Amino acid sequence: MTMFETFQTVTYEGADSDNPLAFRHYDAKKQVMGKSLEEHLRFAVAYWHSFAWEGGDPFGGSTFQRDWHPQNSMENAFKKADAAFDFFRVLDVPYFCWHDLDLRPDQGNFADNLATLDQITDYLGEKMEQVGTKLLWGTANMFSERRWMSGASTNPDPDVFAFAAATVKSCMDATHKMGGENYVLWGGREGYETLLNTNMGQELDHMGRFLNMVVDYKHKIGFKGAILVEPKPQEPSKHQYDFDAATCIGFLRKYGLENEVKLNLEQGHAILAGHSFEHEIAVAAADGMLGSIDMNRNDYQSGWDTDQFPNNTPEVALCYYHILKAGGLGSGGTNFDAKVRRQSLTAEDLIAAHVGGMDICARGLEAAAAMLEDGGLEDALSERYAGWETPEAQAMLESDFESIAARVVAEDIRPEPKSGRQEILENYVNRFV
Amino acid sequence: MTMFETFQTVTYEGADSDNPLAFRHYDAKKQVMGKSLEEHLRFAVAYWHSFAWEGGDPFGGSTFQRDWHPQNSMENAFKKADAAFDFFRVLDVPYFCWHDLDLRPDQGNFADNLATLDQITDYLGEKMEQVGTKLLWGTANMFSERRWMSGASTNPDPDVFAFAAATVKSCMDATHKMGGENYVLWGGREGYETLLNTNMGQELDHMGRFLNMVVDYKHKIGFKGAILVEPKPQEPSKHQYDFDAATCIGFLRKYGLENEVKLNLEQGHAILAGHSFEHEIAVAAADGMLGSIDMNRNDYQSGWDTDQFPNNTPEVALCYYHILKAGGLGSGGTNFDAKVRRQSLTAEDLIAAHVGGMDICARGLEAAAAMLEDGGLEDALSERYAGWETPEAQAMLESDFESIAARVVAEDIRPEPKSGRQEILENYVNRFV
Amino acid sequence: MTMFETFQTVTYEGADSDNPLAFRHYDAKKQVMGKSLEEHLRFAVAYWHSFAWEGGDPFGGSTFQRDWHPQNSMENAFKKADAAFDFFRVLDVPYFCWHDLDLRPDQGNFADNLATLDQITDYLGEKMEQVGTKLLWGTANMFSERRWMSGASTNPDPDVFAFAAATVKSCMDATHKMGGENYVLWGGREGYETLLNTNMGQELDHMGRFLNMVVDYKHKIGFKGAILVEPKPQEPSKHQYDFDAATCIGFLRKYGLENEVKLNLEQGHAILAGHSFEHEIAVAAADGMLGSIDMNRNDYQSGWDTDQFPNNTPEVALCYYHILKAGGLGSGGTNFDAKVRRQSLTAEDLIAAHVGGMDICARGLEAAAAMLEDGGLEDALSERYAGWETPEAQAMLESDFESIAARVVAEDIRPEPKSGRQEILENYVNRFV
Amino acid sequence: MTMFETFQTVTYEGADSDNPLAFRHYDAKKQVMGKSLEEHLRFAVAYWHSFAWEGGDPFGGSTFQRDWHPQNSMENAFKKADAAFDFFRVLDVPYFCWHDLDLRPDQGNFADNLATLDQITDYLGEKMEQVGTKLLWGTANMFSERRWMSGASTNPDPDVFAFAAATVKSCMDATHKMGGENYVLWGGREGYETLLNTNMGQELDHMGRFLNMVVDYKHKIGFKGAILVEPKPQEPSKHQYDFDAATCIGFLRKYGLENEVKLNLEQGHAILAGHSFEHEIAVAAADGMLGSIDMNRNDYQSGWDTDQFPNNTPEVALCYYHILKAGGLGSGGTNFDAKVRRQSLTAEDLIAAHVGGMDICARGLEAAAAMLEDGGLEDALSERYAGWETPEAQAMLESDFESIAARVVAEDIRPEPKSGRQEILENYVNRFV
Repeated sequence: MTMFETFQTVTYEGADSDNPLAFRHYDAKKQVMGKSLEEHLRFAVAYWHSFAWEGGDPFGGSTFQRDWHPQNSMENAFKKADAAFDFFRVLDVPYFCWHDLDLRPDQGNFADNLATLDQITDYLGEKMEQVGTKLLWGTANMFSERRWMSGASTNPDPDVFAFAAATVKSCMDATHKMGGENYVLWGGREGYETLLNTNMGQELDHMGRFLNMVVDYKHKIGFKGAILVEPKPQEPSKHQYDFDAATCIGFLRKYGLENEVKLNLEQGHAILAGHSFEHEIAVAAADGMLGSIDMNRNDYQSGWDTDQFPNNTPEVALCYYHILKAGGLGSGGTNFDAKVRRQSLTAEDLIAAHVGGMDICARGLEAAAAMLEDGGLEDALSERYAGWETPEAQAMLESDFESIAARVVAEDIRPEPKSGRQEILENYVNRFV
Repeated sequence: MTMFETFQTVTYEGADSDNPLAFRHYDAKKQVMGKSLEEHLRFAVAYWHSFAWEGGDPFGGSTFQRDWHPQNSMENAFKKADAAFDFFRVLDVPYFCWHDLDLRPDQGNFADNLATLDQITDYLGEKMEQVGTKLLWGTANMFSERRWMSGASTNPDPDVFAFAAATVKSCMDATHKMGGENYVLWGGREGYETLLNTNMGQELDHMGRFLNMVVDYKHKIGFKGAILVEPKPQEPSKHQYDFDAATCIGFLRKYGLENEVKLNLEQGHAILAGHSFEHEIAVAAADGMLGSIDMNRNDYQSGWDTDQFPNNTPEVALCYYHILKAGGLGSGGTNFDAKVRRQSLTAEDLIAAHVGGMDICARGLEAAAAMLEDGGLEDALSERYAGWETPEAQAMLESDFESIAARVVAEDIRPEPKSGRQEILENYVNRFV
Repeated sequence: MTMFETFQTVTYEGADSDNPLAFRHYDAKKQVMGKSLEEHLRFAVAYWHSFAWEGGDPFGGSTFQRDWHPQNSMENAFKKADAAFDFFRVLDVPYFCWHDLDLRPDQGNFADNLATLDQITDYLGEKMEQVGTKLLWGTANMFSERRWMSGASTNPDPDVFAFAAATVKSCMDATHKMGGENYVLWGGREGYETLLNTNMGQELDHMGRFLNMVVDYKHKIGFKGAILVEPKPQEPSKHQYDFDAATCIGFLRKYGLENEVKLNLEQGHAILAGHSFEHEIAVAAADGMLGSIDMNRNDYQSGWDTDQFPNNTPEVALCYYHILKAGGLGSGGTNFDAKVRRQSLTAEDLIAAHVGGMDICARGLEAAAAMLEDGGLEDALSERYAGWETPEAQAMLESDFESIAARVVAEDIRPEPKSGRQEILENYVNRFV
Repeated sequence: MTMFETFQTVTYEGADSDNPLAFRHYDAKKQVMGKSLEEHLRFAVAYWHSFAWEGGDPFGGSTFQRDWHPQNSMENAFKKADAAFDFFRVLDVPYFCWHDLDLRPDQGNFADNLATLDQITDYLGEKMEQVGTKLLWGTANMFSERRWMSGASTNPDPDVFAFAAATVKSCMDATHKMGGENYVLWGGREGYETLLNTNMGQELDHMGRFLNMVVDYKHKIGFKGAILVEPKPQEPSKHQYDFDAATCIGFLRKYGLENEVKLNLEQGHAILAGHSFEHEIAVAAADGMLGSIDMNRNDYQSGWDTDQFPNNTPEVALCYYHILKAGGLGSGGTNFDAKVRRQSLTAEDLIAAHVGGMDICARGLEAAAAMLEDGGLEDALSERYAGWETPEAQAMLESDFESIAARVVAEDIRPEPKSGRQEILENYVNRFV
């Protein structure tokens, strides 16, 4: 008997429904641009926010009271798994994601961590078969236990590097075993609190080496999923090395990983780094490194990661527009790295939050697809850059300063500005959202 | 007769002086770590803020009234040059920096821009000989005139790319002619206002190609100075491609320029990007790309580039600490990319602002040198990372996940956290500032 | 012949229209909650952004080329007026707003400022009759000319206070003459650049006295419109005394003006102060001081006032929801204190930007009205606070700590948290936007 | 045997000392402007950060391992008290501050909370006599336990208001019993997460009524200390009603409390609200409401309250400058609402952090006193505002717009801007820091 047991599977009822536990927009099988919404969106529930987080914040403790609390025993880990998969049943969601620490408590040493991880993932494997939920990605939590306080692969202590290597190996093994479609690394403590005690160059080299070991091990075990790193500028660290998409891409290129690793981008992390989410997507896409997304929403007035469920269709539509332009999410998906507010205590709150998020994403994706099918933005782009299509312009790119300068003088080139048409394009978007 | 004519050259009077127009800390010939302060700091005055800017802001026009206003004639350009060099005489500052547009007005076409640039730089060359001021770097202003409104090398219009190429060539030539020790590129409009009208991948490719042309031309003309790009995250653009040091380094590496181009870092730009200035310096230093600095100060509560003179010794000391650790400024220098407030109308204000800034930098550098000579921070670093010096640790870096994991199990490695000692290190720094 | 002459008056064509110069949502006469959209929204065009601003920014000069440039003669002031009213004709917008300086250039002395203000407002008066556009509010620009650089009513120089008093008097007279429905004060330089040179207490007292003079003069001349102050936290000043709604309300109460003055709230200013726009509206409404709104949009990643046209329906809907709950805009209105981007050079850009903004506001207001008519949010509020409706709860509010503490012990009160239902309410809102 | 037992009491050794556990600047008995440093600064240690906080953050659990962990029993509460007072002995600090919840665990109901609070404060009272440490202020933690999740005095549930009233009463009684010199209220959950579920006007009225009950009770029991509220803009709440100093002052005036309640200002909270710390102090001082300070430091690049120990002398000097100008801290003090970083595990870290903070404050206060004694800033202020000292200027303040405007015309007043001299004043300050 789980807290979700009395809830029926949520169904699509259409935009006119006022049932708070029905989909109004997410019609999983609806075809859009040749694929179903389910195939486009590839929704995943985050085990940590929805089942491991207890409602605490920096100024207050647990507000939730779940039957799997306290989370310090394997017995309660199984109860939690039961509840999680009952929740997946309610949402009929295709994927979930986990950190190892979400699944079962840390045991204090690696051998026991490994044994209990095997134990719980075996159990989850059975659940996955029963309910039909698949694993979008697994990852190792290397930031909560005190051993990680000064970093994992970037720790000044090589023993922590070793523990991190063993831990990631175990999580990659578990992900592979469960048929996971990607493996993610988020380096919450790979960074610094103060430069005064930090050898940044050495730490980056260690991080680069570690990630190469990840890639080597992936090939060794025949894991076919993508390896993804997740940018975030800070929090918990004062500075995190994987600051944003551009920084990660530069890092990957430096350490020879640009063809092996992609990015898992999160809206909240983009905001903290001073970017829009679509910016981060566009940056990754421009280098062919768009892997997957964590779809949430940050409060624009708060300076930390609020991880709220998305609720703004126009913003979400622009994100999916850039994703669709980049060819879609591939093996990635739309993970709700989002948590209900700590005052949202009930099972209904948790279900409704996901329902609302899935609906917003479905609306956004449909709007994005309609824009692409209409082609208005692409036409505007083509027109704006048309000058570069001429042979003369292409030849100039292959030439040099002297010949260009000579031509500027000879032809007395005086460029005349043309409108960027920003407001007209923004109005265009509003026809679809 | 210039507005500075009645001022004598500022001299060093020592820390007890209460003369607002004397140096209290900057004793140019004082030896520190084997070099004079002058050789370490390599101060430069920015022509734009001190002579071209008229005191306007987004909500108000000119407040200054200089005898070289309005700046729309060559006649006034010469008057401005006279005043500038009289100012350099008062400060006895070794360097200055310019944009072409600071020196003389835009003429509306390239041929006339070129001719007038030659004319004014000839005149400046004479002044330089007379006064003894040298050129730290020159740069092209490709953001003020309306032709640049949609970017220079990243403009959708290839004619603007051509005009930019011709302009940079002319500025490189002028810099070379004047014995400039570096050439800088700041891409204020190389970015976007909205992704809706922007082909980011194409624009970045064009920017990369343009910068390769810069490097080619440098070698062609035998310019020995460094080529520097200057990161800034935004303003005037909503997003600038040269967002911060890490982004620039990634860009340089992508376009094969990592051995040809370094960074000109600015405190205010660091702040706008969400970083401390010492962070940016450390990032550049870790990749060997520290070129030069723009030393100013941003108001921590304002969201735009306030470009104030530095006035906080502890902050400045940490910057020079990282610079000294990286081997110093090389061919770069300490450029005051800083402007007096628009209410600071007088000649005395302008002189005193530079005197205060130079004093703060001298204090900061001396404190940094004292820390390095004491060695406390280096010792703490060595101790913290000592574990990596063992052969076992180095061997681990060359191994793989499987062997590491096996060892973690075999040895039952349980890493024990050690204090990061942040406050103790911060207190240590306060012994020197 | 104006730049808008070839454009026909924009009409409502319905949501399916793809005409970029048609209203898709703003059907002016449509009745919503007992009033037409026109009466609810009371749209106004801002003379400054649309006609006086030339496309400059801190890093670049004018990009627009209008036939009323340069704006240094009365002749061009008349040309500008012709264009403005032709633009009002195209939009069929009911109101406009001005600063004195938008209408004609500063003359360097008050007597000439007064004479030319009379001259141009006489001319505008004729235009208003012809075109049918009314004046929502007038205001004095006391921040652009250099005399205001250190403040207007808060200037250390009493002569500037005097000049400010005369200027505001002239603008109130002009507003009254033109049938203006409100008078606004925005203190862009009423604040400080540095506390080091500022007597904050004295400056606030002067500002309080000045505002009392405004109210006295209003009554003297029989002006029936509202007096409004406009909060903004900073920019151009480092700190502005009218920081946000709560600060202004505190200021008004301190100087005995809480029943005489209301607030003109702006989205962009709310964002700069760390608030959502609906927060500022709710704060003003809670004290009965909601006067009017400046409807624009700030870029969430930029730290200055970007004054973009609104384009996000869900956000705009929440603003109008709080406005409607507060009883509507009264004598206030929806002023587009918004400017096209400086790359948006054409007449079509300027028209389309306003059309898009008006459409978004109409969509938002209709959604807000639908929510209010549905009553879901109000019902949820009533239920959440129902406990306070009991006589016991009301009696407790009138009692004291000792009796309450005694009761807590006696009854062993152990409050049980109830869900705040945030996500469910957010989903509810998304049914309407 | 406590973790501090082996440490001797820290003594003043002078600026040349390199002993990390000696005062280099804080010479407690040194006389400055007629009072000892101890009397000026009135240092207090915060019980919560130094003894109750276990090193957790939003992404990680406890890093510290203290012998009073876990903090769920009265037995460990006594052990914690022993350690705390041993720490006070080491620092020889005159004051400490507490929340009730720091002292002993919440018991789940008010009667037991009261009984255990009495028990532990009796024990602390004995310790205070033994060690000589006094109580600067007490306060109630009404934000950590889940009953407070939706606010205390502003909770939608009147039972929570009742529990809050009983709790504050008990904490005021305990503070009074211990000879506390102030009582503080910080409303961490008095605010909202979303306006959608919030009746802001009603909540503010309840908060105003509650604070009136506090004042009434203070007089009833004859508590002579000051009642202080502590502004913070957000965190944990999305918005807190006590946003900043100006907002609190407006609130106090609205509810008739402006002569009864003062402010406890914190540097970190100022920064989060978009202000400098000296701004908040100056705002409070201008209204005579400066009560006490929480002296810490926020990371300028982090968007949450980092509560670091102060380490920047120039910044701290400006704060004490405004405090001294306002007549000093009165019954308030300098509370270190600061915590060591979670990697700073050792007793030495905790001691050194306080030693460094006390030294910085002593340096800052001495610099501030020297500036005041020199009088340079006051002279500059007097000169800048001298125009207002004339009878004509004062008469103008008493007059009206018509007479002023007439005079502006008659005398053809054309105000001429004068330099604000900001950089010269900043340089002046740097002579003292």
